[in-house]
Amino acid sequence: MTPIRHNHADSDPVLDAARDCVLAVGVRRTTLTDVARRAGVSRMTLYRRWPDVRSLVGDLMTREWIGVAADAMPPSDDDRPERERIVGGLVAGAAAFRAHPLFHKILDVDPELLLPYVLDRRGASQDALLGLLHTALENGHEDGSVRVVRTDLQARSLLLVVQSFTLSLRTMTDETDPELSEAAFLGELRTLLERTLTP
Amino acid sequence: MTPIRHNHADSDPVLDAARDCVLAVGVRRTTLTDVARRAGVSRMTLYRRWPDVRSLVGDLMTREWIGVAADAMPPSDDDRPERERIVGGLVAGAAAFRAHPLFHKILDVDPELLLPYVLDRRGASQDALLGLLHTALENGHEDGSVRVVRTDLQARSLLLVVQSFTLSLRTMTDETDPELSEAAFLGELRTLLERTLTP
Repeated sequence: MTPIRHNHADSDPVLDAARDCVLAVGVRRTTLTDVARRAGVSRMTLYRRWPDVRSLVGDLMTREWIGVAADAMPPSDDDRPERERIVGGLVAGAAAFRAHPLFHKILDVDPELLLPYVLDRRGASQDALLGLLHTALENGHEDGSVRVVRTDLQARSLLLVVQSFTLSLRTMTDETDPELSEAAFLGELRTLLERTLTP
Repeated sequence: MTPIRHNHADSDPVLDAARDCVLAVGVRRTTLTDVARRAGVSRMTLYRRWPDVRSLVGDLMTREWIGVAADAMPPSDDDRPERERIVGGLVAGAAAFRAHPLFHKILDVDPELLLPYVLDRRGASQDALLGLLHTALENGHEDGSVRVVRTDLQARSLLLVVQSFTLSLRTMTDETDPELSEAAFLGELRTLLERTLTP
């Protein structure tokens, strides 16, 4: 957790209010009226920025997941190869995402909202995460620490892997067995990422 | 495609009828009555084996996906390391699963049926696939071609990766760009599996 996260965009009071509403009642039962009331602004003010609750929640999710990813990414360090930073960031990001209260709420209350982004098409959050990964991979190609392959393909392939270890991990863990714990799977994820990124 | 697939269990006329029903109308609209009529057996005969359409469709899916996996797995060959067989089988299996008409029908008509098996718990088909993988990985530990780690953890981690490249590939491909085609992603999957399994 670095103070960088709490920049101007991050402390948008409307997005904060939307987050509180989603944590209270889930995505589907959140309304623009509730969010406006909680943020202390008029509904017209909200409508000027977001035509519907769907677009508002989309912006909330993008902010939250980019925040998780940015917090998880170790700071740049000229002494360490970029590959180490990427692997560390992805593993910490998967763990932080799984621990995030919004992720829990969606899993508990609105899991069907995740389905299109698993089966059909990318959402804004996924594209934003791909943008971060793209930059990091290009740095890694430049410093020679990351296997060179078309960056788009590499970023999207990494996201497929990390998404599965995030969204589907619960289907595979067995918390009564330390060798099948979440930590054990994150260790395998680290090995897998390290090996696939090595030149 | 080997003749091995069409063994006694595979040609069960009730499961064949269930497959035809699901391909015609999807899972939710398939009824035991329809399946009985199509198979030419009485409803009582069906009820003795399957208490409801859900369990019948579960058995159908397990048969089909195990069939896909078995067809995709290259035959055992003492001259080739087991790792090659596993990697080849998983990549071919992902491609065959994506091309399977039942997978298309579920994506088009009943995608929400996949959700529990992505987010929450394993189904019978996933456990059956893990069983196949477990055996292959143990052979690979024995012949020295596969990195030794707890076999359960390794099999489940591989399934997480291959599942994501199967279920979610459409969210990442761009068929107008040959470098982001399904074939390009399956190439990345091959590299990733090869590297993670190397001792």
